[in-house]
Formats: sequence, structure tokens, C-alpha cells
Amino acid sequence: MRQFTVELEELNQKLLEMGGLVETAIHRSIRALVAQNPEIAEQVIRDEPRINRRQMEIDDLVTGLLARRQPVARDLRFLTSVLKINTDLERMGDLARHIAQRAVTLMGHPLGQALVDIPRLGSLVESMVLKCLTAFVEGDDQLARSILPLDDEVDALRDAIYERLLTVMQNDPALVPPAVDLIFVARHLERIGDHATNIAEDVVFLVKGVDVRHHAERLENV
Amino acid sequence: MRQFTVELEELNQKLLEMGGLVETAIHRSIRALVAQNPEIAEQVIRDEPRINRRQMEIDDLVTGLLARRQPVARDLRFLTSVLKINTDLERMGDLARHIAQRAVTLMGHPLGQALVDIPRLGSLVESMVLKCLTAFVEGDDQLARSILPLDDEVDALRDAIYERLLTVMQNDPALVPPAVDLIFVARHLERIGDHATNIAEDVVFLVKGVDVRHHAERLENV
Repeated sequence: MRQFTVELEELNQKLLEMGGLVETAIHRSIRALVAQNPEIAEQVIRDEPRINRRQMEIDDLVTGLLARRQPVARDLRFLTSVLKINTDLERMGDLARHIAQRAVTLMGHPLGQALVDIPRLGSLVESMVLKCLTAFVEGDDQLARSILPLDDEVDALRDAIYERLLTVMQNDPALVPPAVDLIFVARHLERIGDHATNIAEDVVFLVKGVDVRHHAERLENV
Repeated sequence: MRQFTVELEELNQKLLEMGGLVETAIHRSIRALVAQNPEIAEQVIRDEPRINRRQMEIDDLVTGLLARRQPVARDLRFLTSVLKINTDLERMGDLARHIAQRAVTLMGHPLGQALVDIPRLGSLVESMVLKCLTAFVEGDDQLARSILPLDDEVDALRDAIYERLLTVMQNDPALVPPAVDLIFVARHLERIGDHATNIAEDVVFLVKGVDVRHHAERLENV
């Protein structure tokens, strides 16, 4: 059983490395956009296959451990949580690449106020990603729970960005294509926040054994 | 072991029911949009919590079976695939709700040609969903593989819709808000197609034990 503990620790380590890669990709994709830096954007796009390979390695590790070790209780919960978190992280990496691709298209298109709000949304989302990974590492369900309400802040900021961009497009047809790109960037950031929320929910489940997904609904529809 | 077979069959049945609910939601959300029918849209929105509850039930069932039965080989692969397919289906239900919400906003906004292409994209995506569920039920990896190339068709149709909507917005600022709604609908449909592709990949993995995710990359980056 000692060997199993070592294997779980290795898996934990691999997932954290995956988290680090994804966090870097998100950070760079926002910086590429805000600093209008095509090299940084290209780097995000180039690095994404590494995240995908890591995802498959982790899935294989989990499946192998489930088969060989037949874990129960907390270890089993850990392994099924890793499968889910892994999926969320891979998807976040994907979204960072999408943002980087929009950043490339947007080079030389300053959009003023909309670009002020996007870094704000970006920072908020980045803080959610950092927190959910920290909560996972430290098994801190309180920190994980603190992420859940931030989802509403993300939605409010995204709505403000949409409103502003709709006005931009209506006032100047020439700005329609870049404004649509920024609408997608806001959407991708919002989705990254959703995945961070998913991970936070998984951490709560892992630590407390409580399923907090669809919490409002669950209470409503009992 | 006989009892375990019965439990796996029950799980299979529950996942198929979940698939049926999601398929119906997708179909209705497209119909609500095309027929400009708010009742159908409201129905999709109202029914979504049922899909979410089903997702949690299935996850609980899988976790329980992993713990009590400690399956190996094909049964283990089946259970981990169910976890993933379940996540994809829940997300598709979510996207159907998003489409239904846009359909409500779009009531009374006919957008001509763009709306012709959206049902086409909708039909294509619906056929992918049907096929991936059938491939799962019948363990048909050939049918599952036949879905993978459709992703490119989806992308091409989505691009055509975007182009058209950009032109619409540039020609008539009053149409910017509904055109943005339709851009999101096209995006949601594309994402549903992505999830159908994920499920198809899981079916191939389940039947053949071969991981076909990120296939192009994997070959490129060996």
C-alpha cells in the first residue's frame, strides 16, 4: 500500500503541473491580447498540444491505478475527481488558445474602453483559476467555496462588456469584426471561470464528500 | 457477479435516458428558434434541472459501483467512459438551454439567410448527437468514427454563418443585437458538435481500447 501512496502523489504532482501549464497559458493569452504581442499569442498556440498530451497521460495513469489498485473511499474519490479536474483543465487550455487566436486577429485594433474591461475580467478569472488550484493542493474546501460566488461577478462584468461592444458596433460598422472577436474573448474568459468553479466544486466534494453542483436547483427541486 | 451485470445494465439504461433528454432538449431548442415559438423555448429551460439531476445520479451510481465492485478491464473502461459521456451530455443540455434563451430574445427578429443556415447547422449537429448515442448503445466503433470528420463540416458552416452575420451587422446597425444572438447560437451548436465528437471518441476507446483524442497532434508530436 506504501507504493500506492507514492503513485497517488505522483499523480497529484502531474495534475499540478498540468494546472501550472494551463494557468500560464491563460495568463499569456490575456497578456498577448492586452499588450498586442503576437509572439506571446503564438507561444500559447504552440504550447497547447503539450497540455493535451498531459491530459491523456493523466487519464491513463488514473485508469491504470483504478484497475491495479481498486481503491475505495477517499482514494477512489480522489481518482474520480482527478478525472474531472483533468477534463476541466484541458478545456481551459483550449479556451486560452482560442483567446490567443483572437488576440492574433485583433493585432492593431485598439478598442478603447472594451479593452479596459477585458483585462479586469481576465484578472478576476485568473484569480479564480489560481484559487481553485491552491484549494486543490491544500485540500482547502473553504477556499474552494469562496470561488463559487465569484461566478456572479464574472457574469456581471461579461454583460457590461457585451453592452459596450454592442454600442461600439452600432456606432461604427467598421468595428464590427474586432468587436465580435472581443465578445468571444469575454465569452471564453467567462467559460474559464465556469471551469474554475467546476474544479472548486470537485475540491469541496473531495474534501467533504458533499456534492455542491447545481446547488440552487437541488434545493429548489427536492 | 450476476448482480453486477444487472447494475451495469441499469447504469447503461440511465445514461441512455439522459441521452434522450439531452437529444430532445437540443431538438426543441432549434425548433423554438426556427419556429419562433416561445413555449418550446420555455420548456427547454424548464426541463434542464432534470438533466442536471440525472447527471448527479449517474455520477453517484458510477462512484458507488467503482467502490463496491472494484471492476477491472472492460467494466472499468465502461465506468470511466460513462463518467466522461455523462459530463458531455450535461454540458450539451446546458448549451441547448443557452440556445433556447437566445431563441426567446430573438422572438420577432427574422434574420433571413442566416436563419436558413442555422437550421442546416442544427440538423448536422443533431445527426452527430443521434449517431454518437447510437454508436454508444450498439458499441459500434465504425459509426463512432464516422462522426469525427463531420466536425470540419460543422466548422465550415459556422464560418459561413459568421461571415453572413458580420455583413448583416455592418449593413444595418439595428440588427447588431439579434445578429450577435445568432452568432452565439452558431457557437453553441458548434460546441454541441464538439461534445458529440468527444462521446464518439469515448465510444471508440470503449470498444477498441484506443485513445483517438487529439489524434492529429499525437501523430505530429511523437
